[in-house]
Amino acid sequence: MGHADRKPRGAHLVQAALDQVAEEGLDGLSIRTVAARAGVSPAQVQYYFHSKDDLLAAAFDHLSHDVEQRTAAVDTSGPPPGVLRQLLRLWLPLDETRARATRVWLAFTAAAATSPRLSPQNTALDHDLRVTFATLLRHAQANGDLDPSTDPDLEAALLLAVVDGLCLQALALPQAERTTILTDGLNTRLARLFATNATTAR
Amino acid sequence: MGHADRKPRGAHLVQAALDQVAEEGLDGLSIRTVAARAGVSPAQVQYYFHSKDDLLAAAFDHLSHDVEQRTAAVDTSGPPPGVLRQLLRLWLPLDETRARATRVWLAFTAAAATSPRLSPQNTALDHDLRVTFATLLRHAQANGDLDPSTDPDLEAALLLAVVDGLCLQALALPQAERTTILTDGLNTRLARLFATNATTAR
Repeated sequence: MGHADRKPRGAHLVQAALDQVAEEGLDGLSIRTVAARAGVSPAQVQYYFHSKDDLLAAAFDHLSHDVEQRTAAVDTSGPPPGVLRQLLRLWLPLDETRARATRVWLAFTAAAATSPRLSPQNTALDHDLRVTFATLLRHAQANGDLDPSTDPDLEAALLLAVVDGLCLQALALPQAERTTILTDGLNTRLARLFATNATTAR
Repeated sequence: MGHADRKPRGAHLVQAALDQVAEEGLDGLSIRTVAARAGVSPAQVQYYFHSKDDLLAAAFDHLSHDVEQRTAAVDTSGPPPGVLRQLLRLWLPLDETRARATRVWLAFTAAAATSPRLSPQNTALDHDLRVTFATLLRHAQANGDLDPSTDPDLEAALLLAVVDGLCLQALALPQAERTTILTDGLNTRLARLFATNATTAR
């Protein structure tokens, strides 16, 4: 089978794995369920993916690339507080499409807590996000938008924490209540961070 | 079988389920693996628990009661910022015992995102924690420790978010790096929240 045949088939299986986790959770993911959803034999799935963890890793990788592409599309020329707000919003389950992605992220993160196969990918993602946020916060300090005594690395970890935690709470709420907690939560959090400039930096 | 026999046996199975999830993750939890760990037959496990979700619900319930007991032991007579700090620290994976509990919480939360059986328990826990935190924040406002213009309900959601998010990040880090991010993160976050009083309330 040539490379040209291979890629679309694999992509179809990754999408089936994503749909399966988003709808049935980690528990519903297996070589068998992905095969059934994609309309192929289990052996065909196993040709590309050797285990459930392989399927989950590929599904999450696909999602990560999607967020990276949307991250790259954000206009970063404006003031850092607004840029950061746009970037953080990309992760929030503000509509059903993103709620599906958030459920897959959560399943992946939970699996990574005990899987040596998935743990490095999860640790690397957190690390990359903290570095991205810390870089923006350093720009904000250089621009005079953020108190220079603020620790950008610690604040980056706290921003990642609040976004992850808001995602968890939002998933536990009915869709109608999600937008308020997500949007008000993020706006209040960012307003307080950048307010440290106005109130404490002289 | 009388009630007196029943409780210890059930408790033994709940502990086996907790250990199984803490070490092997959600994926490793089943009637069969819990039976093997507890040294009983699968039929004996099924006498108490009809499904994997039942086991997970009972395991998480046990953990929640444990945190409730530790919460009740916190001296709440001091200033609200210190009380809140002590309460929030109860949830952080600051040692291996609590890291195990955090992994079980994460597995439960992830499963609840797609399980109608588990979702109400997860939603109720988040709700109860937000109410507890909001009550403390209202006390802090009444005592003059917190800016009266702060929204206690929204700040309670943000505190829960940051604690949940710090737990996720900590689990993805080696044990040696956890304490710094957890302790510095929580202290910085609380200092900024209560600093809104000193800087903006007059």
